[in-house]
Amino acid sequence: MRISDRLATLVSDGDGWGVFYKARALVAEGVAVTELTIGEHDIPTHPRILEEMHRAARGGHTGYAAVPGTDALRDKVAAHVTERSGVPTGRGNVLITPGGQSGLFAAHMLACAPGDRGLFIDPYYATYPGTIRAAGALPVPVAARAEDGFQPDPARIAASAAGATSLLINTPNNPTGILYDRDRLQGLVDLTRTRGLWLISDEVYDTMVWDGRHLSPRALPGARDHTLVVGSMSKSHAMTGSRIGWVIGPEPAISALIDLATHTTYGVPGYIQDAALFALDEGAWLEEEIAAPFRRRRDLAAGIVAGCPVVQSAPAQGAMYLMLDIRRTGLSGLGFAEALLDRHRIAVMPGESFGRAAAGHVRVALTVEDAALARALDVLLRFAEDLCREAAE
Amino acid sequence: MRISDRLATLVSDGDGWGVFYKARALVAEGVAVTELTIGEHDIPTHPRILEEMHRAARGGHTGYAAVPGTDALRDKVAAHVTERSGVPTGRGNVLITPGGQSGLFAAHMLACAPGDRGLFIDPYYATYPGTIRAAGALPVPVAARAEDGFQPDPARIAASAAGATSLLINTPNNPTGILYDRDRLQGLVDLTRTRGLWLISDEVYDTMVWDGRHLSPRALPGARDHTLVVGSMSKSHAMTGSRIGWVIGPEPAISALIDLATHTTYGVPGYIQDAALFALDEGAWLEEEIAAPFRRRRDLAAGIVAGCPVVQSAPAQGAMYLMLDIRRTGLSGLGFAEALLDRHRIAVMPGESFGRAAAGHVRVALTVEDAALARALDVLLRFAEDLCREAAE
Repeated sequence: MRISDRLATLVSDGDGWGVFYKARALVAEGVAVTELTIGEHDIPTHPRILEEMHRAARGGHTGYAAVPGTDALRDKVAAHVTERSGVPTGRGNVLITPGGQSGLFAAHMLACAPGDRGLFIDPYYATYPGTIRAAGALPVPVAARAEDGFQPDPARIAASAAGATSLLINTPNNPTGILYDRDRLQGLVDLTRTRGLWLISDEVYDTMVWDGRHLSPRALPGARDHTLVVGSMSKSHAMTGSRIGWVIGPEPAISALIDLATHTTYGVPGYIQDAALFALDEGAWLEEEIAAPFRRRRDLAAGIVAGCPVVQSAPAQGAMYLMLDIRRTGLSGLGFAEALLDRHRIAVMPGESFGRAAAGHVRVALTVEDAALARALDVLLRFAEDLCREAAE
Repeated sequence: MRISDRLATLVSDGDGWGVFYKARALVAEGVAVTELTIGEHDIPTHPRILEEMHRAARGGHTGYAAVPGTDALRDKVAAHVTERSGVPTGRGNVLITPGGQSGLFAAHMLACAPGDRGLFIDPYYATYPGTIRAAGALPVPVAARAEDGFQPDPARIAASAAGATSLLINTPNNPTGILYDRDRLQGLVDLTRTRGLWLISDEVYDTMVWDGRHLSPRALPGARDHTLVVGSMSKSHAMTGSRIGWVIGPEPAISALIDLATHTTYGVPGYIQDAALFALDEGAWLEEEIAAPFRRRRDLAAGIVAGCPVVQSAPAQGAMYLMLDIRRTGLSGLGFAEALLDRHRIAVMPGESFGRAAAGHVRVALTVEDAALARALDVLLRFAEDLCREAAE
């Protein structure tokens, strides 16, 4: 039987996930591997959040919840966004979604018609091209070059904008760990407004910012009417498995997204929404507690890498990653990652997994405890230095 | 800013939901209304299921769960489907989804490319046309006529099949409460196979069957390679709010649907999957306990209606509804439902809410306790009789 082209061709990107799967297979065989691959916390959801979830479920919140989200949670998220971004935001600007990925898909379903072009920045989070394809649109990467500190370049984006209806960005950025700076973001806001593109801003790492403060492009002049912000409690509150997030946008857009939700997800479990409300009501201490190990490990890791003469790190300003330039070893990111796993049982992601712009790099996730991270980085850097020496001989 | 046509025109069906919203508004104002509108249980999820969910969450199952579903739950659902339908079903035939609606959408994303025609049977569950539109396809209703006991007619469907890639059916049926009979189902299986259509079978009421046994079309000769079954624990286990269900189908289809899930839902919370596994492991007693009140009310209601000379009920063989033919009153279903709400504070759904084929009917949900249901039906029938008398005068 015929499977629609849209689904049959959904996954056609991402070299280098072989390293991830090989590492998992080794672990399953009982081999000790230091896994620095994907962005999952090494901590579970806080017990108090889980107690609140159980209280809500036992209290009877087990029937259909309102599809757009409960009034209480939409109001809380609106207040939270208002406070953090300074942009007045109300219930009508908020759709609660089952996770950030669901928000990314919904935003593209709104922005793109079948055949439209959906722009996104390379390097990119693994699901981006497939998400745009799932919405029936053509994913078009635009490089943010290593030489430019992986900052997006409005001029390069403008050159690809013909036929596009959306631009997807991500700051703090996965996989590079950088923050997009104010000037670049304003450039993207102006460009997308002028060209009639939706600006879709993935901000799921907004509580993990190590230098300065998180800046949402929605807070910039001229952004509000054409920007959709995707948020999530996965990273901020270690609730990855609970699949809860949101889309923030202009009221007519949110209204259309509610119609979409009625026909796709039919909302988010009420007891999970109640738990999320509790977690947001707790305020910043919980977010800071969850972010603290990553801040500490970023400092630790940046210090270790700074001492290495052959490997450079992109500025690690946020999120939970370090993007290391290993081009002086003469290997590709994929070759380096494969060799590192084979010889030293350390798994990192090849830059090529995230597009062409991060070729010759590897991404290190800061998701193991400090001593193991430091040991693994020492081995990685010594390995790189040895390769350089061999290459020079 | 432009919202894609697909979303801007998603909701354009369903006259008569005004009655539902008006009833809800009256209740909010403190007016006593007997609501017999939507198909939501009057019971919460069983405490033992919620305890198991909490145990799993506290045990640490709060990170990303496998996107296709946990191995344990996929295996359990496969065994459950094998046992109930007699069709050998394995893990590779099962995708766990966040609810039945999500499964309906995914199935149409697989079956239909943008611009294809997606067939469905009228009368229909409210989200069907919008679900097909959300997948970029054109929803095409095919009437199952009241005169034919609301059974689908393969010949009428064949006449609409040009350009179609899918046929969506629902048995036990919402809104009519009937079961599709074996001959009709075999006719649909043969027709869809011959014409190269996917047969998408919504079986979310499969544990609520009052006459005979549930028959899945996937169990019929020639069905397996082109049939996708959508299941859910919403009705069977009173887990509506937990958003958990599945799609059963051929392995290549499930494999493509897993790719779609990676780019849309990113899976279902692990602790909800663990709770669902527990609930399925409990076996039939739990399903029977949940179904029992509806069976009892069906018997009660059918007995009351049988005594009325002017209102006929479609055979109430399953699900949680009674479809009443009120055409002899001279009113439309909408007119009757509006008048019944205004004069007697009883809310039922106009047949017109579910398409053209159920015009002149009203749907009664068996979702209130027995005495209130009996009282409301008595009032409804007396009201119909009065209208007939007035019309005759």
